[in-house]
Amino acid sequence: MNWIGKSVSRLDAWEKAVGTAVFGIDVKLPGMLHGRVLRSPHPHARIRHIDVTRARKLAGVALVLTGKDLGLIHGESIKDEPFLAIDKVRYVGEPVVAVAAVDGETCEEALDLVEVEYEPLPAVFDPEAAMQPDAPLLHERLDQYEVMGIVTPVPGTNIANHFKIRWGDVARGFAEADEVFEDTYSTGMVQHAAIEPHACTAQVDPTGRITVWSHNDAPHRARKELADALGLPLSQVRFVNCYAGGNFGSKGGLKTEPTAVALALRLKGKPVKVVWSREEVFTSTIVRHPTVVTVKTGVTRDGRLVAREVRAIYDTGAYAEKGPTVCRQGGHTASGPYNIPHVKVDAYCVYTNKPIAGAFRGYGIPQVAWAYECHMDAIAERLGIDAVDLRLRNCLQEGDVTCTGQRLHSVGLKESVIRAAEAIGWQKPKVPGRGRGLACVHKNTKTPSSSGAFIKLEEDGSVSVLTSAAEVGQGARTVLAQIAAEALGVPLDRISMAMADTDFTPYDASSTSSRTTFHVGNAIALAAQDVHQQLRQIAADLLEANPEDLVAGDGRVYVKGSPERALTYSQALKKTMGAGASILGRGFYYPKDATGMDNETGYGENPSVFWMYCAHAAEVEVDRETGQVRVLKLVAAHDVGKAINPQMCEQQIEGGVLTGLGTTLYEWMILKDGKVLNPNFADYRLPTAMEQPEVIPILVETPHRDGPFGAKGVGEVTLGPTSAAIANALYDAIGVRIRDLPITPEKVLQALRGRSA
Amino acid sequence: MNWIGKSVSRLDAWEKAVGTAVFGIDVKLPGMLHGRVLRSPHPHARIRHIDVTRARKLAGVALVLTGKDLGLIHGESIKDEPFLAIDKVRYVGEPVVAVAAVDGETCEEALDLVEVEYEPLPAVFDPEAAMQPDAPLLHERLDQYEVMGIVTPVPGTNIANHFKIRWGDVARGFAEADEVFEDTYSTGMVQHAAIEPHACTAQVDPTGRITVWSHNDAPHRARKELADALGLPLSQVRFVNCYAGGNFGSKGGLKTEPTAVALALRLKGKPVKVVWSREEVFTSTIVRHPTVVTVKTGVTRDGRLVAREVRAIYDTGAYAEKGPTVCRQGGHTASGPYNIPHVKVDAYCVYTNKPIAGAFRGYGIPQVAWAYECHMDAIAERLGIDAVDLRLRNCLQEGDVTCTGQRLHSVGLKESVIRAAEAIGWQKPKVPGRGRGLACVHKNTKTPSSSGAFIKLEEDGSVSVLTSAAEVGQGARTVLAQIAAEALGVPLDRISMAMADTDFTPYDASSTSSRTTFHVGNAIALAAQDVHQQLRQIAADLLEANPEDLVAGDGRVYVKGSPERALTYSQALKKTMGAGASILGRGFYYPKDATGMDNETGYGENPSVFWMYCAHAAEVEVDRETGQVRVLKLVAAHDVGKAINPQMCEQQIEGGVLTGLGTTLYEWMILKDGKVLNPNFADYRLPTAMEQPEVIPILVETPHRDGPFGAKGVGEVTLGPTSAAIANALYDAIGVRIRDLPITPEKVLQALRGRSA
Repeated sequence: MNWIGKSVSRLDAWEKAVGTAVFGIDVKLPGMLHGRVLRSPHPHARIRHIDVTRARKLAGVALVLTGKDLGLIHGESIKDEPFLAIDKVRYVGEPVVAVAAVDGETCEEALDLVEVEYEPLPAVFDPEAAMQPDAPLLHERLDQYEVMGIVTPVPGTNIANHFKIRWGDVARGFAEADEVFEDTYSTGMVQHAAIEPHACTAQVDPTGRITVWSHNDAPHRARKELADALGLPLSQVRFVNCYAGGNFGSKGGLKTEPTAVALALRLKGKPVKVVWSREEVFTSTIVRHPTVVTVKTGVTRDGRLVAREVRAIYDTGAYAEKGPTVCRQGGHTASGPYNIPHVKVDAYCVYTNKPIAGAFRGYGIPQVAWAYECHMDAIAERLGIDAVDLRLRNCLQEGDVTCTGQRLHSVGLKESVIRAAEAIGWQKPKVPGRGRGLACVHKNTKTPSSSGAFIKLEEDGSVSVLTSAAEVGQGARTVLAQIAAEALGVPLDRISMAMADTDFTPYDASSTSSRTTFHVGNAIALAAQDVHQQLRQIAADLLEANPEDLVAGDGRVYVKGSPERALTYSQALKKTMGAGASILGRGFYYPKDATGMDNETGYGENPSVFWMYCAHAAEVEVDRETGQVRVLKLVAAHDVGKAINPQMCEQQIEGGVLTGLGTTLYEWMILKDGKVLNPNFADYRLPTAMEQPEVIPILVETPHRDGPFGAKGVGEVTLGPTSAAIANALYDAIGVRIRDLPITPEKVLQALRGRSA
Repeated sequence: MNWIGKSVSRLDAWEKAVGTAVFGIDVKLPGMLHGRVLRSPHPHARIRHIDVTRARKLAGVALVLTGKDLGLIHGESIKDEPFLAIDKVRYVGEPVVAVAAVDGETCEEALDLVEVEYEPLPAVFDPEAAMQPDAPLLHERLDQYEVMGIVTPVPGTNIANHFKIRWGDVARGFAEADEVFEDTYSTGMVQHAAIEPHACTAQVDPTGRITVWSHNDAPHRARKELADALGLPLSQVRFVNCYAGGNFGSKGGLKTEPTAVALALRLKGKPVKVVWSREEVFTSTIVRHPTVVTVKTGVTRDGRLVAREVRAIYDTGAYAEKGPTVCRQGGHTASGPYNIPHVKVDAYCVYTNKPIAGAFRGYGIPQVAWAYECHMDAIAERLGIDAVDLRLRNCLQEGDVTCTGQRLHSVGLKESVIRAAEAIGWQKPKVPGRGRGLACVHKNTKTPSSSGAFIKLEEDGSVSVLTSAAEVGQGARTVLAQIAAEALGVPLDRISMAMADTDFTPYDASSTSSRTTFHVGNAIALAAQDVHQQLRQIAADLLEANPEDLVAGDGRVYVKGSPERALTYSQALKKTMGAGASILGRGFYYPKDATGMDNETGYGENPSVFWMYCAHAAEVEVDRETGQVRVLKLVAAHDVGKAINPQMCEQQIEGGVLTGLGTTLYEWMILKDGKVLNPNFADYRLPTAMEQPEVIPILVETPHRDGPFGAKGVGEVTLGPTSAAIANALYDAIGVRIRDLPITPEKVLQALRGRSA
C-alpha cells in the first residue's frame, strides 16, 4: 500500500488557498445577464393576477417571466414543484416572477414594479395537524403527480410518503416484554449554513441545448431532473460542475437552476446568472426536516430489547424535493443499531406551508437517532443498567440480521462504543456540574446506485481520471486520486482528476449518502483493472509471455515469478505504439446484489450496500444560573471500513461534530405564520470558535469486502449521535431531559424550574 | 445505413451562425492580463544587450521577460526554437521580449521602452545557397538538439532533414529509357490566411499546473511539446480546445502558447491572453514552404515511365517546426502516383533566415505535385501522347506496389482521372484563348498514429462521445457523430460531441493529415463495439439467452433469428440498473500493421495506412494583353473511400480548390532581406468571389477495408493538383509554361514576350 491509509494533502488545497479555484458563484461569461425572482409573501394563497407590464418596460430588463408563461414543473421524488408558482403559492418565499436584466439592481427595480394580487388560503404549519383529514391540502392533485417508484404518497392527504417496516410482531413483542417505555422527541428547523450561497449560470444554444454551470452535488441527477421537467433527452442538457463552497445536502436537486434555465431558454445565446441572497438560501432553498418522533420499546428486565415501534413525522414543507427519501432513509434506521426481534416503523413525510425540507447531512437519521438514543438512556436509567452496557448488550454485530432481513458485514459498532466510552472516561468519577453522555447510531447508504469512471494512461505514465464525483469540500478528489494511484500503481502526483461535467465525465448517482469513496472508488478500481488487462496484453508480446502470466502494478508489467522480466508502463506503451501511446480504461460499478425494500414491510436483503457505525461521547458543563450548556469534549469513534486518508476522515468527523453541536444547542430557524424570522447569520446562531469543544476523532477500521481497499464512508453519519450524546450528558450533569432540539438555555432553565417546582 | 452517406447539417452550424460558439480568441477569464512580444528587426543577429528597466517600471505592467530569463526551448521534430530568442535572432519577427500588462496598449507602450542592442550577422535567404558549405549557419549546435527519430538532420550544415527513397536503380532506368527529361519548378512563400488569428490564454495554478485555452489542431501533441519544453509530466499540463476559425495547418504546434505560458508561469494564478496581430500571423507563425523541385524522368517511346529522380528543396526558414516531416511526406510522394520501377528521391529541409515554414494543407505534396504534374504534361507533349492518356498508362492501381514497397489497396486514381477528364470536356474542340489542363496526385497520411474514444450511453439512449478531434471548420464533429450514430445504432440527435480537452478526452495524435475520419472514426467504432458487448451481456439475463446469441444495433438488443425477443437500449439499461443506468465504452485505434520507412532507402511496407487520390481538371481563359489568367471551371474528382457526409466532402473540395487557385495565381509573400513586405490582407492578395471559378466536385468511392464504413480522408489533398492543372491549361491555351508559382500576369507576359522574341 503506497497511497492507502496515507494522510496526503488535499489536491485542491493550493488553488483554494490562493483563490484560483472556481466555485459556482465565480462563473462569469461574456454578455452575461443576471436573474432574480419575486417571492411569495403568503404561506398559502391563490394567485389572482400578475401585472408585469411596467417591469417589462424598464430599461435594462431583458425578460420577465411568470409561472403561467412557463408551466414547468420539476421534482426528483415527486414532480410537484413549479419553476415559478402557477396557480397558487404554498410557502413564504416561493418564486412567483423571474426577471433577467443587465445587473442585479435593475432586476430588483423591475421586480418592484411587478404587481401580484393574491387570495390568501388557509395554511397549515404543524405536520401532525397537516395529517388530519380536515387539514388544508397543499397539493390537491397529488394523485396525478409523477412519483418515484420507491415513494408512496397518500393522495387526498398531505402525506408525501409513508414508509413502513414490519418485522416480527411488535404486539407479541410488547406482550412478552417486562417493561414498555415510550417517549416523544422533536427537532426544529435548521439550515445547512454553507458559506457559498446557491448560484448557477445557464446558457442555451440556438438549437435549444442547455448548458448549466453550477456546484451541484449530483450533476447527472440534476441533469435528469431538468431534462424530465423540460421533456428533453439527456443529450440536450449539460451540467458543468464547479467547486461548492459547502454542501451538507443543500446543493443537490434544482435550486437556482430552474430560474436561470427558464430565463436562458427564452434568451437563447445569452448566459443568465442567478445567485440567491443569504435570506433566499434560508427561506427558499431547503432546510433540515423538523420532526416529531415517538419511540416505544419493550425490554426485558436484564436489558434485552424485545420490540420497538417508531412513529416518525418529517415536516417536509411545501414541496417534496428529497423529503420522501429522507423519510425513507430515516425510517429505515429508526429502530436504531440494535438487535430487536420485533420492529414496526411508520415514517411519514408531510407537506406543510413552510420552507421546503430536504437533504441535510445525515439524511433523516440524526432526527430519529436523537429520539432513540435519548430514549435508550431513559430506558437504561429506568432499568438501572449502565447506558453503555445497555447498548453493548443489544448492538448489532457481524453476521446479525437487520429488521429488513439484511445480514450485516463490517460492523464496527461495538468497538466504536467501547472506544468512545474509554476516551471520554466513562468510568471516571463524576465532577459536579458536569456530565457525560454517549450515543451510537448506524447509517445506511443510498442503494442501489451506480458510478462510472474513465481512466486515461498516457505515454509518460501520467493519468487522467474522469468521474462525476462532486468536490463539495469533503475531499473526494483527493481520496479518489489516492484510490486511482494505488489501483493503477502510479505516483499520486501523476494523476489529474477531472471536474464533473456531464458531457465528459461518466454517470455518477450523486456525491451524497457517503457513497462516493465506496462507489466511485470501486468504479475507479474497475477502470484500473481494465487498464492493467490491456497493459498485460500489449506487454505480452514484448516480454514473450502470456498475458495471464503477467502482473501489472507499481508502474511495471512483469512476468509472474520473474520480476526482472519487466517493463515500465511507459516502456510498454512506447515500445508498442511509439509516440502518442495511450491506454483507455473504463469501470462502471453497480452493486449487483443490491435490493430495494418492499413498500409494505420494508423487507430487503441488501438495501444498503454498506452500513456506517459510530458512537459519540460528550462531556458537558451546565450553568444552572443561565441554563447554558457548554460542551467540553466530544469523542467521535467511527467505523469507516478502511481510512483511505485518515486525516480527511478526521476532518469530516470534526466538521460533522460541529454541525451536530450547532443543531443541538444553537441553531434554529424561527417561523411565524410560515415566515422565517431569522434568515441570516446575525439572527441564526451558529457555533463559533468560542463554543468549539475539544473534539477527539477515533477511526475504527472494519474493512468491507466490497469496498475499495475495504473503505466504506464517513461524512454523513458524523453528526448522527451528537445531539443525543450531549443531551444524555446534560441529563447526567443536572438530571433534566430536554426532548426538543435545540437545547436552548431557556428550555434548560424551564426544565430546571419544572423539576424544582 | 441510417447515418452514413447522408449530408446532414453541421452540428455546430447554429452556434457558429449566431455567434455563441467559443473560438480561441473569444476566451475571457476574470482578472485576465494581456501579453505581447517585441520582435527582431534583423534576419540574423547576435543579441548584445537588452534593457527592460524602463518597461518594468511602467504602470500597468505585470511582467517583462527576456529569453535569458527563461532559457526555454521547444520543438516537435527538432527542439530548436526558443520561447524568446536567447543569444541570437534568426529571422525578422522572432520574439525577443515578452510583456504582460493590464491591456494591449500598455503592453505596446512597455515594449516601446525596451532597448535591444543587436550585432547583425550574415544572413542566408536562398535555400540552395544555404546548403553550400560556406553558408552562414543558423544553428551551430544542430548536432546537440533533441531530434525526432524519423528526422535526419545534417549537423554542420543548414539541412534540418534529408529524406531519401532508393527504389530499383535509377541509373539503369535512365540508361534503359528511350528519352530522359528534366525540369525544375519552384514555389513562393504563401500564407494559410485563416480568418481567426492565433490566440491562447494560459493560467498556472499555485502548484504549477498549467491550463491552456487554445484552438490547436492537435491538443495532445501541443501538450506534449509544452511539457517536454518545461520538463513536466503530461499530467501537469492541460489543453482546453476551442473552435478554430480556420486552420489549414497553421494552428498546430506552439504559436501563441509559449508566450502566454511563459508569462503565466511567473504570474501564478493570473490568466494571460495572447493574440497575434495579422502582421504577426504572417511573419511570425508559419508559412508554406517555398520549394525548388527538379524532376528527371526516363520514359519509353510509348509513354511508360521507367525511372524518376527527384530533388526537392524545402526552404524551412529559421526553425524546424514541422518542416522536417513536411519534407518527408512531400518526399514520400515526390515521384507521383505512378508505377515507376526505378525511383530516387532526395528531399531536403533547409534552414534560412526567413519566417518559419511548417504544415500547410497538403503538407509538402502540392509543391512536388506542381513539379511532377507540369513535368508530366511536358513529357506528354514531347512524346506526342495525350496528357490524360500518359497518366492512365502509368497510374497506380489496386494491388500495385509503391516505391517504398507498399502494396496498395483502395486506389481510385484511374477513375478520378477519367471522370475529371470527362467533366472538363477533355475531348471537346478547343476554343481560342482557352485551354484545358489536368493533373493528378496521391497523398499519404501520417502513419503510424493513434486515436482514442470514450462513449457514454445513458439510460434514455442519449450518448456522449469523447474524442480529441479538433473542430477546425472541417466538420469533424458532425462526421464523427454520424459514425457514432451508425456504429451504436442511435439517432444522431441523441449524440453530444465533447470538445477536446486533454483532462477529459482521450489521446488523439492530431486533426491533421486528413486522418481524423479514419482514425478517430475507427476509435469510435471500437468504443461502440465495447458498448454493444456490454449491452449484450446485460440483456442476456433479461432475454434468457447467451450474450453471443444476441445482436445489438439500431437501438435494440435482440436474439439472433428472433428479432421479436428484443429490448431497447433504454429498457435493457433500466431493467438491469434502474435509474442512473449507464454503459461506458472505450476504443483505441492504433494501426498494428503500420510501418515506418527506412531512413536510408525509404523502404516501408505500410508507411501510410491509406492513400488519397484525386485528379483536377481546369479550363482557363488567358488575356494576352494583360497576362491575366482566368480559371473558368475546375473539376475535382476525389477518391474519398466512402463519403460519410457527401456534402461536407464537397465543401472540403471546394475550399481546397480555392486555396489551390489562390496559391497558383495570386498569393505570394514578398520578402526583402528576410522582411515580409506584404504581411496583411490588403497587400497579400487572396482570391475573392470575383475570381471564383465554377467548381465541380466529384466523389469517387473505393471503400477502404480498414476505414470506418470504408472511409479514408479528403481535406488535405484537395489542392494537390490544382496548380499543375491550371498551369497545364494555361500552356494548352497559349503555349507558355510558367515554372514558378504564383503564375502572375507579369510572368505570363514575360513568357509571351520571351517566346515571341
